[in-house]
Amino acid sequence: MTNIADGKALASKIYEQISSEVDGLSKIPMLVVIITNDNEAGQIYVRNKQRACEKTGILSETIELDANVSEKELIGNILKLNKDELVDAILVQLPLPPHIDTERVLNAISPKKDADGFHYINAGKMFTGQIPNTVACTPKGIIRLLDEYKVKLEGLNAVVIGRSNIVGKPIAQLLLQRNATVTMCHSKTKNIETFTKNADLIVCATGQPEFLKGDMVKDGVIVIDVGISRKDGKLCGDVEFETVAPKASLITPVPGGVGPMTVAMLVQNTLDLTKKHIEDNQKKYITFL
Amino acid sequence: MTNIADGKALASKIYEQISSEVDGLSKIPMLVVIITNDNEAGQIYVRNKQRACEKTGILSETIELDANVSEKELIGNILKLNKDELVDAILVQLPLPPHIDTERVLNAISPKKDADGFHYINAGKMFTGQIPNTVACTPKGIIRLLDEYKVKLEGLNAVVIGRSNIVGKPIAQLLLQRNATVTMCHSKTKNIETFTKNADLIVCATGQPEFLKGDMVKDGVIVIDVGISRKDGKLCGDVEFETVAPKASLITPVPGGVGPMTVAMLVQNTLDLTKKHIEDNQKKYITFL
Repeated sequence: MTNIADGKALASKIYEQISSEVDGLSKIPMLVVIITNDNEAGQIYVRNKQRACEKTGILSETIELDANVSEKELIGNILKLNKDELVDAILVQLPLPPHIDTERVLNAISPKKDADGFHYINAGKMFTGQIPNTVACTPKGIIRLLDEYKVKLEGLNAVVIGRSNIVGKPIAQLLLQRNATVTMCHSKTKNIETFTKNADLIVCATGQPEFLKGDMVKDGVIVIDVGISRKDGKLCGDVEFETVAPKASLITPVPGGVGPMTVAMLVQNTLDLTKKHIEDNQKKYITFL
Repeated sequence: MTNIADGKALASKIYEQISSEVDGLSKIPMLVVIITNDNEAGQIYVRNKQRACEKTGILSETIELDANVSEKELIGNILKLNKDELVDAILVQLPLPPHIDTERVLNAISPKKDADGFHYINAGKMFTGQIPNTVACTPKGIIRLLDEYKVKLEGLNAVVIGRSNIVGKPIAQLLLQRNATVTMCHSKTKNIETFTKNADLIVCATGQPEFLKGDMVKDGVIVIDVGISRKDGKLCGDVEFETVAPKASLITPVPGGVGPMTVAMLVQNTLDLTKKHIEDNQKKYITFL
């Protein structure tokens, strides 16, 4: 009775919707991605993101900087893009080289052009239940996928494993906003299986291949696998699919689950920022008249 | 073996420390409290806060506005205080009259003068593990009290009941930062006793008098009672003290537990903001030279 949540199919559906919306806009949306040339894993993601943009008629440009770039120069690039009227969304591909302060760089992006929703102003609004410009792509994509499969989140016992700013913390808040009871587990959690065994929903974002195993979950559990890594040459997630899937009522595969949803939400965020940008400019024009 | 956490005694100790710090400053700290004249419960809190400031040599002023004040006028008052060089910290006493948008008002306070730490920029920095100007007083006071009693938070199974921006959400984050496993429960949580019975630490902020009862907790639990209300003419918290205290290894009483700590942290926040204010002015002066 296992239901496999098809993130790839849903992403395709979302691209169709975005594409028709883009056709109706008075400005072609534009995303700029900044990446340093030492970030090999990031290059693949960036290519995926660009391909997704192209599919929907969104312009995307990449600025590739040398791995030795100074923090000042990197931030200088961002400040120029903040001012550029043609640019609607900016994304800095992580990780950055170790000599660069990631928080400072992410906070330099205008909150109105923050494609990833990592700026503390957007995170802060989300955290306090206000409306941010954008929400981080992976958590947003997870909620969208759960909605597609009509999962009723209210009252569910949800366990989030991992507490990064990119996935764990924001997905915990989004689940809380949907009235789930949310437990945040992490590397310092003792006896983690006492939490996972009682969970109705598990979001696994440990970064450890096949961390969550079948004997750690109950029958009927919903499992969202955020990880992606390679084990013995094969792609795998943070969930041991063979043992967990038979017990799950819904599970995301790797690949084809959360990954495509993350990319789709980046394109969605770019569209949303563009629409607000157009609206702001119209307001300016009206004030000018 | 129950240990009662004496918030009042710790607050006194903190006032002594603050007082000697204030004596050494080049500027007398100044807190301004804004309150509307329909807020009767708030008047008592404001008086307590002022008294605490006086004890430590901090100036405090109150601006009392008519309950019919417009949002524009209220925000106008805040903007003036933001610019006033003599003012180091601003607090708007909640609740505000229903015709006023509380979020807009709180976000109008300069994040550098945000005595309560409710501005989304400060909340956002706290949420993402950055350093905010101030942290909300009640959660900050709870952590300070737990530290005083040498509670080792790492690995504890902590359950927070209530998810307000003022207490529940920020205390959950602070506990998470200290490596506790944190579950956020609320009014939509099903079978809440299954969570509380396994908890090593419970923070109860439901606003319902004597909500948490002895049969809902395990032996040795640490209990933080955030509530204060009146039942049959007697002050009580969100915890049924008579039945919970005998099982607890540490518990905060009502009154005399979290309440005095909240006020002490407000005074602490005012001092901290003043110190930053003085530092910023010195930097300006140096730049000018």
